[in-house]
Amino acid sequence: MADSPECVVAVDLGGTLTKIGYVGEDGTATAVRRLDTYRAGGADGLADWLGDRIAEAAAAAPGPCHGFGIAVPGIIDAASGTVRAAPNVGWTEMPIRDRLHDRTGLSGAVGHDVRAGGLAEGRLGCPDAQNVFFLPIGTGIAAAMIVDGRLLEAGGYAGEIGHTRVRAAGETPCACGQIGCLETVASAAGVARGYAAARGVEAGSNLDARAVAEAARAGDPDALAAFAVATDALTESLLLSTTLLGSEVIIIGGGLSGAADLFLPEVERRIAATATFQRVPEFRLATLGADAGLIGAGLLGWAELRGVDHD
Amino acid sequence: MADSPECVVAVDLGGTLTKIGYVGEDGTATAVRRLDTYRAGGADGLADWLGDRIAEAAAAAPGPCHGFGIAVPGIIDAASGTVRAAPNVGWTEMPIRDRLHDRTGLSGAVGHDVRAGGLAEGRLGCPDAQNVFFLPIGTGIAAAMIVDGRLLEAGGYAGEIGHTRVRAAGETPCACGQIGCLETVASAAGVARGYAAARGVEAGSNLDARAVAEAARAGDPDALAAFAVATDALTESLLLSTTLLGSEVIIIGGGLSGAADLFLPEVERRIAATATFQRVPEFRLATLGADAGLIGAGLLGWAELRGVDHD
Repeated sequence: MADSPECVVAVDLGGTLTKIGYVGEDGTATAVRRLDTYRAGGADGLADWLGDRIAEAAAAAPGPCHGFGIAVPGIIDAASGTVRAAPNVGWTEMPIRDRLHDRTGLSGAVGHDVRAGGLAEGRLGCPDAQNVFFLPIGTGIAAAMIVDGRLLEAGGYAGEIGHTRVRAAGETPCACGQIGCLETVASAAGVARGYAAARGVEAGSNLDARAVAEAARAGDPDALAAFAVATDALTESLLLSTTLLGSEVIIIGGGLSGAADLFLPEVERRIAATATFQRVPEFRLATLGADAGLIGAGLLGWAELRGVDHD
Repeated sequence: MADSPECVVAVDLGGTLTKIGYVGEDGTATAVRRLDTYRAGGADGLADWLGDRIAEAAAAAPGPCHGFGIAVPGIIDAASGTVRAAPNVGWTEMPIRDRLHDRTGLSGAVGHDVRAGGLAEGRLGCPDAQNVFFLPIGTGIAAAMIVDGRLLEAGGYAGEIGHTRVRAAGETPCACGQIGCLETVASAAGVARGYAAARGVEAGSNLDARAVAEAARAGDPDALAAFAVATDALTESLLLSTTLLGSEVIIIGGGLSGAADLFLPEVERRIAATATFQRVPEFRLATLGADAGLIGAGLLGWAELRGVDHD
């Protein structure tokens, strides 16, 4: 890094915790801090609080600060800089990019947290690939899709692969109201639920998937069965997505990537064995961890400032 | 049209018939002619023949001619202007854009015939929609996908939805080497095969799907059953694609669109009834008919000349 590195202020906004830091044009994140998200002032209070944190950070930047980039969980219309709906942070139809500009005088971009993370994983993890499918597997599953070097947005609707139907999920009801969705059996929560159902106990949160993984590695047949169902489901979904999108690289992230040894080699083997004319993707694990969303937010900010499409 | 309309020379190259004409920046096609594709000279002979036809047409253009656009069936890398593999016309790793430039002195673009057709249907049929899924259903099925206003290419691999697995196809083997592919039951050939199998007779070509449609309209239960399977398969695939790509409009084209009355209202009803948080797409029938590929080729040419991404 130069003595006075150029940067944007990057924010990964969460319902409880918010991360803020500086991101260089090369994706280097520095001075990342965690703040308790301000929730006492409602939707407008949070927008103003966020603007003030960005202005403070810009004023304290170690070098020239060119703007901001923020990542938000919800339905985001990146083109207009509007958060359509983000129940976790309490925003509906919030024109946050313009609000932040008015409050800080800075220009910037707003993006979806998962898509921002996928952009960062793709750009930094495989900069030469133009077609990257990023699948973070956590409590739920949503994809970030880079095609022809560009992150797909579709007005905020792109990438909801967790809510596509797979054979392995049978008729399992999903919280979204549909049945047989991928995430009912292949998310961290889904694996934990599958194991709990086989054991006749109550399913819990993300933490349980780690316990199921440990049990599977110890040879517990119920745990192995839960991962076998997830393997079937992920194979079906990822073969389908790559047939449609011609992915060169598939990056697996999120909490369940810590248990990738229990499903990924088999998913990879089966996709290579089943594909005929399709491009066979290379599989990788995400490398940026919890900072992916913040780094991606910064890259979105840089792209906006350069007037290009996330390139 | 002005007295001296500006144009590009547009070509829809086929293994047997080739269409050539002029396309204006607004997508208006004029002076479209059909030629027998020159096959006596092998791969290079066809490239030279095509260049000569483009040069002739450019010289005879009724107004300023700015370049060319060609649509080719096969695996096309639009970014490099290379036809990777086009068995119907006998080209492998053919850098046709540069070859045509060398032969004619003109600049231009090369694209995939189905994607070019989808671009034309989307641009002219629903110019305000940024997210359009074009599904021509003929002997086979492949999609052209416009997301965020851009046609997805993925190095020529994008859109092979006909070779994604659907429940309704069961274990039916597909010519591609996989099983249960959408096009085994939902293409015109697939509908004809399903009907023939129920009747215990030999299946035929595209023409048969028309006969099956007539039988279905007359109440033939085997014909109705073949369309019911196609309806199931198309509902599953299009719900999935729209969940992944956030399509605003789905355009159905190809030979089987002539029998849309037998499946499309039901597909549309079921997708609207099943979708929960997804954007519910509007369904339309293709309007450009057999000229879609040629018009799309022209639009690709114009986009290349303007240096933009098919906008």
